[in-house]
Amino acid sequence: MDARARRSRDKLSAAVLELAERDGIEAVSMVSIAQAAGVNRSTVYEHAASPLELLRMVLRDELDAIRDRHLTPGAHPDTRTAVRHTTLDVLRHADAHAAIYSRALGSAESTALHGMLSAHFRQSVLTLFQSGAITPPDIPGLDTCFRDVAAARFVADGTVGAIDAWLATPAPRDLAAFAALYVVLLPTWWPLSATQVLEQIAADGQ
Amino acid sequence: MDARARRSRDKLSAAVLELAERDGIEAVSMVSIAQAAGVNRSTVYEHAASPLELLRMVLRDELDAIRDRHLTPGAHPDTRTAVRHTTLDVLRHADAHAAIYSRALGSAESTALHGMLSAHFRQSVLTLFQSGAITPPDIPGLDTCFRDVAAARFVADGTVGAIDAWLATPAPRDLAAFAALYVVLLPTWWPLSATQVLEQIAADGQ
Repeated sequence: MDARARRSRDKLSAAVLELAERDGIEAVSMVSIAQAAGVNRSTVYEHAASPLELLRMVLRDELDAIRDRHLTPGAHPDTRTAVRHTTLDVLRHADAHAAIYSRALGSAESTALHGMLSAHFRQSVLTLFQSGAITPPDIPGLDTCFRDVAAARFVADGTVGAIDAWLATPAPRDLAAFAALYVVLLPTWWPLSATQVLEQIAADGQ
Repeated sequence: MDARARRSRDKLSAAVLELAERDGIEAVSMVSIAQAAGVNRSTVYEHAASPLELLRMVLRDELDAIRDRHLTPGAHPDTRTAVRHTTLDVLRHADAHAAIYSRALGSAESTALHGMLSAHFRQSVLTLFQSGAITPPDIPGLDTCFRDVAAARFVADGTVGAIDAWLATPAPRDLAAFAALYVVLLPTWWPLSATQVLEQIAADGQ
């Protein structure tokens, strides 16, 4: 993407997030996004076919950036640290966009965003399995590929469900308390400790 | 429900399950259900407004029956036994209807059935929490009602995700191997042990 396209994309990102948060994405049109971003309507269509597609792309970009920052090999000294930072940044992302994720719960829009979240988490977990950073327990008679896929689905879909419940509570939300609960929901072999998570939140200043 | 209505309902249940399995529920009409069940079309409309609603009702009835059989207070000597039987019967239900649950993955129909499964599991888990049969670990600073709701969402949505992955594998599916994996995906405080589950499957003859 060249500099000009990058600037348009940044303006469109800010515009769609603001409008979706204020009005709900189902009430947002391509025209209102163009106006809020100060670009031509044709520019909006160059980036996405619908407001929902643009929103999903913008949120996924933020999640991709978190993954690139923490889960790239060598980004952190060990898997526990990488998983801890990823988890906290994902929870902060969800909290920052709570109005968007939790609005219109059960609607087609919400289903689309939840599906995006679930697919993103699943991919992250599978990457951790396939690189050997995390290995679920071996089950006699069970194909390890299937084991990895099913375990990734369990962790990813469970995480989306728990986050959904968290976002339904009023702001300001207590990141430390929710993160501590999240740790005890995960299977024992998942490399996340409550003590380390709470120390990290204190070190990060929330 | 009187005896005549009960008989119609049974015929409609068998018809919608057979047609949905063979053709996919999106290809099933109210007329084809009436023909397969040998009842008037108006009788079908007395039970549900659409083929998908009828299918969801029939599947939910089966799940309700499993819950009534095992999770009613006094049905089993202890929570571990009740949870073990419920889990295995739910997995058998999913396996028996695999063609219906896994067909058209990602479609609106599949979303509706997954939503029904998730809501059903969530309700079962919340009932176990509220009766005091199972208590998730206490988290300092966290409201216990929220803790229960978030934990129920995690377990329910994680379970639906793992089952979905299981049903995507070809039949015949190995119930024992999947159940053993499921146990290690759950949090430690969930009262289900791999050894007892495998003994139960052997005792039940699969």
